[in-house]
Amino acid sequence: MVNENQHTCSASSSSKSDGGSSSGSEGSKDSSRCSTPVLDAERHERLREKMRRRQDSGDKWFSLEFFPPRTASGAVNLTSRFDRMGAGGPLFIDVTWHPAGDPGSDKETSSMIIASTAVNYCGLETILHMTCCNQTKDEITGHLQKAKRLGLKNIMALRGDPAGEEWQEEVEGFNYAVDLVKHIRNEFDDYFDICVAGYPKGHPEAENYEADLRHLKEKVLAGADFIITQLFFRSETFLKFMKDCQAIGITCPIVPGIFPIQGYHSLRQLVRLSKLEVPQEIKDVIEPIKDNDAAIRNYGVELAVSMCRELLDSGMVHGLHFYTLNREVATTEVLKRLGMWTEDPRRPLPWAVSAHPKRRVEDVRPIFWASRPKSYIYRTQEWDDFPNGRWGNSSSPAFGELKDYYLFYLKSKSPREELLKMWGEELTSEESVFEVFTCYITGELNKNGHRVTCMPWNDDPLATETNLLKEQLEKVNRRGILTINSQPNINGKPSTDPIVGWGPSGGYVFQKAYLEFFTSSEIVTALLKVLKKYETRVNYHIVNVKGQNITNAPDLQPNAVTWGIFPGREIIQPTVVDPVSFLFWKDEAFALWIEQWAKLYEEESPSRMIIQYIHDNYYLVNLVDNDFPLENCLWQVVDDTFELLN
Amino acid sequence: MVNENQHTCSASSSSKSDGGSSSGSEGSKDSSRCSTPVLDAERHERLREKMRRRQDSGDKWFSLEFFPPRTASGAVNLTSRFDRMGAGGPLFIDVTWHPAGDPGSDKETSSMIIASTAVNYCGLETILHMTCCNQTKDEITGHLQKAKRLGLKNIMALRGDPAGEEWQEEVEGFNYAVDLVKHIRNEFDDYFDICVAGYPKGHPEAENYEADLRHLKEKVLAGADFIITQLFFRSETFLKFMKDCQAIGITCPIVPGIFPIQGYHSLRQLVRLSKLEVPQEIKDVIEPIKDNDAAIRNYGVELAVSMCRELLDSGMVHGLHFYTLNREVATTEVLKRLGMWTEDPRRPLPWAVSAHPKRRVEDVRPIFWASRPKSYIYRTQEWDDFPNGRWGNSSSPAFGELKDYYLFYLKSKSPREELLKMWGEELTSEESVFEVFTCYITGELNKNGHRVTCMPWNDDPLATETNLLKEQLEKVNRRGILTINSQPNINGKPSTDPIVGWGPSGGYVFQKAYLEFFTSSEIVTALLKVLKKYETRVNYHIVNVKGQNITNAPDLQPNAVTWGIFPGREIIQPTVVDPVSFLFWKDEAFALWIEQWAKLYEEESPSRMIIQYIHDNYYLVNLVDNDFPLENCLWQVVDDTFELLN
Repeated sequence: MVNENQHTCSASSSSKSDGGSSSGSEGSKDSSRCSTPVLDAERHERLREKMRRRQDSGDKWFSLEFFPPRTASGAVNLTSRFDRMGAGGPLFIDVTWHPAGDPGSDKETSSMIIASTAVNYCGLETILHMTCCNQTKDEITGHLQKAKRLGLKNIMALRGDPAGEEWQEEVEGFNYAVDLVKHIRNEFDDYFDICVAGYPKGHPEAENYEADLRHLKEKVLAGADFIITQLFFRSETFLKFMKDCQAIGITCPIVPGIFPIQGYHSLRQLVRLSKLEVPQEIKDVIEPIKDNDAAIRNYGVELAVSMCRELLDSGMVHGLHFYTLNREVATTEVLKRLGMWTEDPRRPLPWAVSAHPKRRVEDVRPIFWASRPKSYIYRTQEWDDFPNGRWGNSSSPAFGELKDYYLFYLKSKSPREELLKMWGEELTSEESVFEVFTCYITGELNKNGHRVTCMPWNDDPLATETNLLKEQLEKVNRRGILTINSQPNINGKPSTDPIVGWGPSGGYVFQKAYLEFFTSSEIVTALLKVLKKYETRVNYHIVNVKGQNITNAPDLQPNAVTWGIFPGREIIQPTVVDPVSFLFWKDEAFALWIEQWAKLYEEESPSRMIIQYIHDNYYLVNLVDNDFPLENCLWQVVDDTFELLN
Repeated sequence: MVNENQHTCSASSSSKSDGGSSSGSEGSKDSSRCSTPVLDAERHERLREKMRRRQDSGDKWFSLEFFPPRTASGAVNLTSRFDRMGAGGPLFIDVTWHPAGDPGSDKETSSMIIASTAVNYCGLETILHMTCCNQTKDEITGHLQKAKRLGLKNIMALRGDPAGEEWQEEVEGFNYAVDLVKHIRNEFDDYFDICVAGYPKGHPEAENYEADLRHLKEKVLAGADFIITQLFFRSETFLKFMKDCQAIGITCPIVPGIFPIQGYHSLRQLVRLSKLEVPQEIKDVIEPIKDNDAAIRNYGVELAVSMCRELLDSGMVHGLHFYTLNREVATTEVLKRLGMWTEDPRRPLPWAVSAHPKRRVEDVRPIFWASRPKSYIYRTQEWDDFPNGRWGNSSSPAFGELKDYYLFYLKSKSPREELLKMWGEELTSEESVFEVFTCYITGELNKNGHRVTCMPWNDDPLATETNLLKEQLEKVNRRGILTINSQPNINGKPSTDPIVGWGPSGGYVFQKAYLEFFTSSEIVTALLKVLKKYETRVNYHIVNVKGQNITNAPDLQPNAVTWGIFPGREIIQPTVVDPVSFLFWKDEAFALWIEQWAKLYEEESPSRMIIQYIHDNYYLVNLVDNDFPLENCLWQVVDDTFELLN
């Protein structure tokens, strides 16, 4: 008789143990259904469960530690570092708590906001550090409530450094990390995953090593889910510590903290702060090359790789935690050498999924923000609801005000001088603007010998996918069709395609051709005549800054322009052209002319007036070719338009 | 400057007048969006608006009148007549109110239930007649409330025939149709569209023609939306009546009631009831041929066609209402001759959409009920909600009990004797069952010379689409893979395709190959071995009557197996294989073996025991080939299974 237990949906109790349906987990939406774990549970599970699952499957992982930067432009840089390093597949990142930097505030550089950025805008599983000494219960509760509200789900509970030289216990206060752990569990039940610190050599202030182990066990008993250790210089140090922990009954995961030596001074500073001693054999190598940063880094990478290999080979270590010092090269290099950097060209959806618990179910977005995903998340953050995982009704209030336009993650990463070099120290006519767009597309140097690597609407160089359209894009930009977004049509490419693929393997992805551009009213007049010939095939929306709006979209319904068909799944349509949200995007798209470009120049200067003229008089146009199995007709539409104008 | 007003979404007031956004209409869901009418407004609008729009566009329409049958089997027949005549594209049908037949009851043959069947199960816009004399206010309110609950939105308000010979006005009661119109408007505001009767020759009981016109105007002033007339024999009669109505200020639509003469006796009876006089020239033709039904019908068709042409040519008539007498041939013939029978092979969705207001938004269904759509609607009728137009969460309660299994629209249309001829007077083995399935597929005569035109799971002959799979289906049924549902894979055929197309034109439709069958446990054992080779490509669900359930479906998510991509629209995925609803379908599918087949035979008879054995021991299997762009692999799966068994 046939009876395949592993496939049988018989009783809800049998599959409880595999972590897919933990009590109170947000993963199981339909309680009366079988408790089968969802396939892309990765996104839906708690950090401690992800860790356990990786341990069970033998799949090694890594994590990355960052500290909050001091300046707003440092924050902008760190955000793009999150994006780049996030692509390598860390299980999580963590952000340290800097008591001196107003860590719980709304400042662009606060620990809270940096961690929130990592979760919400970069889609990274994130741990926020939090220290407790010298703070009141209410202050701490306030921080935790704010963290929860911002979508943070994991806390690293630390004591922190006492204020004075000689620290005195406060009777009613938070004296140790264990007090913070207890407080989190008391006030927030099981909401947060809690991490605590372990000291492989013992905490410098502990009576002795054994006493420190006992303190660690207290933190675990109080509710910590796992341990990350302080850095160390020899694998034996960690392995002994781990055995000692196990010996006194600590069974939760213990993650070694790895510090790739990146320079002489950073090493010295860290050693001073942590009161660790650098082994003589390392000092012997470093001292002679202390002025050669590259040499020290190479040595540091070498050292880290071999120590990590020893740890992984021991069979006791399943994940590695890296102290990055906010730098990219050394850690990435170590991970690549270890074969743990798993950059996967495929994405779960064609855009970066936010890790905020409320936004997990989101599976549709308007195409307009394709190059400004953080702006989209920011502007829609006040939405209460993503009904049924859909991007929902754009007529709901919110959709963020542009008054907050200057928030750091909406700004360009490049400084003013660089932008001027790219976009022109001086503009002489509309045509000099056309030239900037054209150089951005072609990658050729501009008249002054600079490469245009970003535009107000695209902070990054041209996407690989857009490269497929390069030749046509160049031609039209030269003539004043100033493109800011486009995608080719795709008629069923495998979901594993390195350029256009996304979603689970075994599926097929599709696209309708899309083109979005600014252009003059003369061109729009001709374009509208041409579009009559393409009436049902091409949908268009044409708006100007005053809100004049010309469209042939049927009853303002969204038009799906990206979708995928996957084995055993419902259809996913992650990108749409939504007529209503286009009017919100229009505000942002026109504002970028002024905020990012015109304001580079003096008021009343000819350059500024040229940009202002374009802002005031041009139209923003989007076109969709609905007939995705045929050759993209949008280029023909544009050609016909130019012909009509001649 | 460009300014295309007809496309401009500027102010919500400008497009109010075109009927797409009437006050309180259910059509506009997002009040803060522009009030652009939805494209397939046909389904979303009120009858009076549909009528007005057809009049504006000059697109002539027709409607069909039926009366409730006397017997349950008559009701089953009428339901399939609704399906067939509905295919010709009537703007609405109406069902008369038979006071003698307990018209407001839950009987299979009541006016209320017949009208509700037309709306809910046949997806037809329907008017329920209602008479008011000899009834209390409460009785009438009760009927109207029930009608509303059942999804009826249109009432034909009539006086009805008084009980006694000599009718006396009741001071407080409902004496005239106008009282009923007022009552409906008082109690139900604008919920119902109201139709009233007009008498081109004047009501037989009216003082005179002019007084009757005044009564008609009163009914319109009281809130009637349009008028349908009593039958007449000359177009001049109607045209004069219409002018007279207009002259006294009746401006609502007036629809001529057309009676194609279908036989001598039915004409005489109608004339007697309506107190009309048949013109001498008609009598002269009919009397000599009164025993030749075919001749009379031909004459009736001829007469009706020429009268309808005169009416339409007058330019005053936009729609024609047909008194069908529950017959099909004459009315269909007239409509075809007039070029108004508009059978369109394309469907708005691949299944018949229910016209119940609550189910309008439904756009996904499980594939299992493909051949039993009425059963699906019946079993899910208690659902409160179709969230976002989706078929929603099958774990919600309801999903109709099978205890109501004997309801007439779940029964076979064929009588027992016919079923025995088709499915075998006597079965000798499981193989004789295989033979029945095979004959159904091939269309060949069975051993006793009868054609198998239906099966318990399919009340109609094989669908055109399934014909594409005929050869393979025959092969596997012969060997005991007893197929009850299947569809070929389709990789982007035009939505206008006559066989597989559906939805708006200019789109593309897709399908994953699907196969559903009963089979023995021996075959299932082999099949499961074979399926290991197809692990990600083929999804399967295998259940038996006891509920044993074997599947490789990821986390019990629905698998989309039919979808369409259309210009300017979101993606529509109208059919899914839903693992949870499959378990509900399983109950129905297994029950049909017993209820429809086994019970044809005596208890304890060998034939009955064979069917019972199959019911108790076979499995119900469904297979989906996820790789829709490749050649359907399901036949290979089945071939491999048979090979393994050999």
